[in-house]
Amino acid sequence: MDVRGEASPAGWARWGTATNAKVLPDSAAKLLAQVLDLTPPPPVVPLAEVAVPECELDGAVLAALRQVVGDGHVVTAAEARARHASGMSTPDLLRDRRGHVRPAPQAVVRPADHTEVVSVLDVCSRHGVAVVPFGGGTSVVGGLTPTATRHVTVDLSRLDTLVAVDPVSRTAVLQAGLRAPRAAELLAEHGFTLGHVPQSYEYATIGGFAATRSSGQASAGYGRFDDMVTALTVATPRGTVRVGRAPASAAGPDLRQLFLGSEGTLGVITDVTLRVRPLPARSHYEGWRFESFAAGLHAVRRLAQDGPRPTVLRLSDEVETMIGAAGSGRSDGGCLLVAGYEGADVQPTVEAAAGVLAAHGGTPVGAEAGRHWERHRFDAPYLRDALLDAGAFAETLETAAYWSALPEVHARVRQAILDALPDGALVLAHVSHVYETGASLYFTVICSPGPDPIGRWHTAKAAASDAIAAAGATITHHHGVGADHRAWYAAEIGDVAVDLLRAVKRHLDPAGILNPGILVP
Amino acid sequence: MDVRGEASPAGWARWGTATNAKVLPDSAAKLLAQVLDLTPPPPVVPLAEVAVPECELDGAVLAALRQVVGDGHVVTAAEARARHASGMSTPDLLRDRRGHVRPAPQAVVRPADHTEVVSVLDVCSRHGVAVVPFGGGTSVVGGLTPTATRHVTVDLSRLDTLVAVDPVSRTAVLQAGLRAPRAAELLAEHGFTLGHVPQSYEYATIGGFAATRSSGQASAGYGRFDDMVTALTVATPRGTVRVGRAPASAAGPDLRQLFLGSEGTLGVITDVTLRVRPLPARSHYEGWRFESFAAGLHAVRRLAQDGPRPTVLRLSDEVETMIGAAGSGRSDGGCLLVAGYEGADVQPTVEAAAGVLAAHGGTPVGAEAGRHWERHRFDAPYLRDALLDAGAFAETLETAAYWSALPEVHARVRQAILDALPDGALVLAHVSHVYETGASLYFTVICSPGPDPIGRWHTAKAAASDAIAAAGATITHHHGVGADHRAWYAAEIGDVAVDLLRAVKRHLDPAGILNPGILVP
Repeated sequence: MDVRGEASPAGWARWGTATNAKVLPDSAAKLLAQVLDLTPPPPVVPLAEVAVPECELDGAVLAALRQVVGDGHVVTAAEARARHASGMSTPDLLRDRRGHVRPAPQAVVRPADHTEVVSVLDVCSRHGVAVVPFGGGTSVVGGLTPTATRHVTVDLSRLDTLVAVDPVSRTAVLQAGLRAPRAAELLAEHGFTLGHVPQSYEYATIGGFAATRSSGQASAGYGRFDDMVTALTVATPRGTVRVGRAPASAAGPDLRQLFLGSEGTLGVITDVTLRVRPLPARSHYEGWRFESFAAGLHAVRRLAQDGPRPTVLRLSDEVETMIGAAGSGRSDGGCLLVAGYEGADVQPTVEAAAGVLAAHGGTPVGAEAGRHWERHRFDAPYLRDALLDAGAFAETLETAAYWSALPEVHARVRQAILDALPDGALVLAHVSHVYETGASLYFTVICSPGPDPIGRWHTAKAAASDAIAAAGATITHHHGVGADHRAWYAAEIGDVAVDLLRAVKRHLDPAGILNPGILVP
Repeated sequence: MDVRGEASPAGWARWGTATNAKVLPDSAAKLLAQVLDLTPPPPVVPLAEVAVPECELDGAVLAALRQVVGDGHVVTAAEARARHASGMSTPDLLRDRRGHVRPAPQAVVRPADHTEVVSVLDVCSRHGVAVVPFGGGTSVVGGLTPTATRHVTVDLSRLDTLVAVDPVSRTAVLQAGLRAPRAAELLAEHGFTLGHVPQSYEYATIGGFAATRSSGQASAGYGRFDDMVTALTVATPRGTVRVGRAPASAAGPDLRQLFLGSEGTLGVITDVTLRVRPLPARSHYEGWRFESFAAGLHAVRRLAQDGPRPTVLRLSDEVETMIGAAGSGRSDGGCLLVAGYEGADVQPTVEAAAGVLAAHGGTPVGAEAGRHWERHRFDAPYLRDALLDAGAFAETLETAAYWSALPEVHARVRQAILDALPDGALVLAHVSHVYETGASLYFTVICSPGPDPIGRWHTAKAAASDAIAAAGATITHHHGVGADHRAWYAAEIGDVAVDLLRAVKRHLDPAGILNPGILVP
């Protein structure tokens, strides 16, 4: 089951299942109604009523695909195809709610293993059918909506085993279609964890994490997903690439790094060898308050650069802190920092970090603020649905920058969004991934939908992206490029690198079937 | 001045200058004479007597190069060209000592900046003249000896400035030709250090570190050189690539990783933005003794996986410990571990690590063993010259493997070398770079030269490389691929990846001028 877990007719155009849907706290709903012009949304078109054109693939192609994966694993039913037609950005959801589904795949193909993936690519290359690799379906950057008119989705959900664990070297080989919670369960049987907990955790997959350079909420302690990858197997139209065989190597360019972040455009990642860590015996979360975002940033930088490094380190700006407090009933102003600690014995680190935070103006606000964040760590995309239901528009964007640039990036992006939404918007931001040289910045925008919410957001998002580029930051820290960031990505890497990437794609994918229109400018 | 710092006639075919030459300790010389059949080496042919064919470049090419870099910076003198004809592997030195210099570059070209490098590549592309980028000249894997018959050396020594320091983000932009000691000096003026201290430290350059994925003796604390790189500028025949603009990014493949380790085959790295750290206020080195290499490995793995992580962590096997002890007068058997600690306050880490080492069978042997290592940390290549002078043959090779494979890699490589040198050899090994998932293994081989030392070593090295590959380890952890490891590198990454690399090279370097015969199979 992918992220559109809901089987009920109207529930397909939202994050997750009806059972884990979230309701906006009353106080937050009241605050919203005061500051925004909420517009009751049009009714959601049930999945069964969505118009999906018939599958137009030649019988020969379907037969060849069925030959590879078996009859039951080439699905051409309209509902299944509609569910794979786009990702989970707010524009995606708004289109889906209205029944304006993006061009659906002609079929959902479900290979059982690496060999079948290679064969599927071969069939599709020969017949000129585009391929969209599909893990959890949680892309928020248009990563599942190729420009091709004829495409199939390659659903990796059957590649769902833990292949091997090496407890001495602390590595594990996981297949690409494993969803994060199942991967965690399987590793826990061996006493290990990845520590990779992005907001999409409940639905996203190992292959998706690799293909998009995912970063989890505990990245301060466990690292980014790409940091964890020691080896990769990739099915390409040219054959199989298997790279990585040592903890570190000077043997040429690191070709793993060409496939990590390639978003299905250079090949289909079928398994990943990952560094794992022992399951932590202890965990502790707590909150701290800072007078200002600037003061909080300084303290966060001290921990990121000189330690001790918490496992989770997250600092909300003034607006996000205020909105969060409105929801939780707290209202102490300033900026909230959440620090989480996991390990065999966290107390010495908790105490040492507390010394640093206090020395830089932090005031402890207790463990409950930390536990509150932990309990609600996956809530945001559910709350987005609740906001859309309530007649608001909500979407997120993110970047990363060096420490010295971070305050300016925060200010410029915020201002660009506000300028682009002149009838008012709430712009919330936080830092949630820290490095020695800088940090991420994650923005949440809540505004009135207006008559053309998708068009308006397109303008605001472009203004924010321009501000990110102008401030020298990267167009994405962990959401990926997809279709939405392609132009800014091209500008970020420059013409010579763009041509290089195209040459790599032409070589590996001569028929141009792999996720056309995604990533590669 | 590159690694061949010696201006005296006979001293050019050795590491460094006469003033820092090292003499074999008497005890070591006696031990050697007991176990090996030493053969007095032939006299060294002075540089002035080395036959170097005249420069055969067309006048038009020379004029075009002079137009770019200025008359004084296109050097065609025989001595300068001979000094750039090869690297510093033992076969390189043996050939040079006999005056059998590898095909020398037609000229040594010394551009002043990035723009001039781009223009030099343009001239060379148009005229079909191969280019060998040259930093410190310390390659030990044939990285400076291309297969091309006509090539020029592009000496980057004039690109020697610290371009910028960002003390808040802790990054610095350094030009490629900066030698490590000068880079350290410039950064120290700002209170920072790279902490990158490979054995080639005295001569090697920033660009060379990047192009070969160098790893320093303090990698346990400061990381590998490639870990430190946040951005790169590369001159390619297609133009300039500038990649990296944030502490981390999900914006597509990490193209930095295509140029790191590319050994001058895809472009010439002209500057590197690096993460820097504050100069450590304290440092402490100490020695520990373990009963066996296996026991030491277990303790080292505990520190690498669960911490606390020393800055330097180095474990010699029984033979290396014995030979080292013979040199220093110590003789307590077992295996020597050296742990070094650098930072603002190292004592808590020293104590915590001592607890782990003791719990795993280690016995402290005091600070002098650590200081002895520190004092002699750059000695090995000087001692190699002394060994060659004494009539022995000495060379090194290295690899990295996952922890679970490391004992077998150690045993198999050792045995392969001994089998290939049936009249006796000393095979010393140590672990000196540790990771959560595994570690490096560095072998030193000392044997009789015999009548054909280069041919014999070629056979032994091939056997060792085969054993590395058979045990699933990487063909190089930090020396690079060069010309010497090309075949094993190809096998390591596989056919599809080899073709991919060739496609990348064809695209960036359509005239095929960049270090032909190096790295790319």
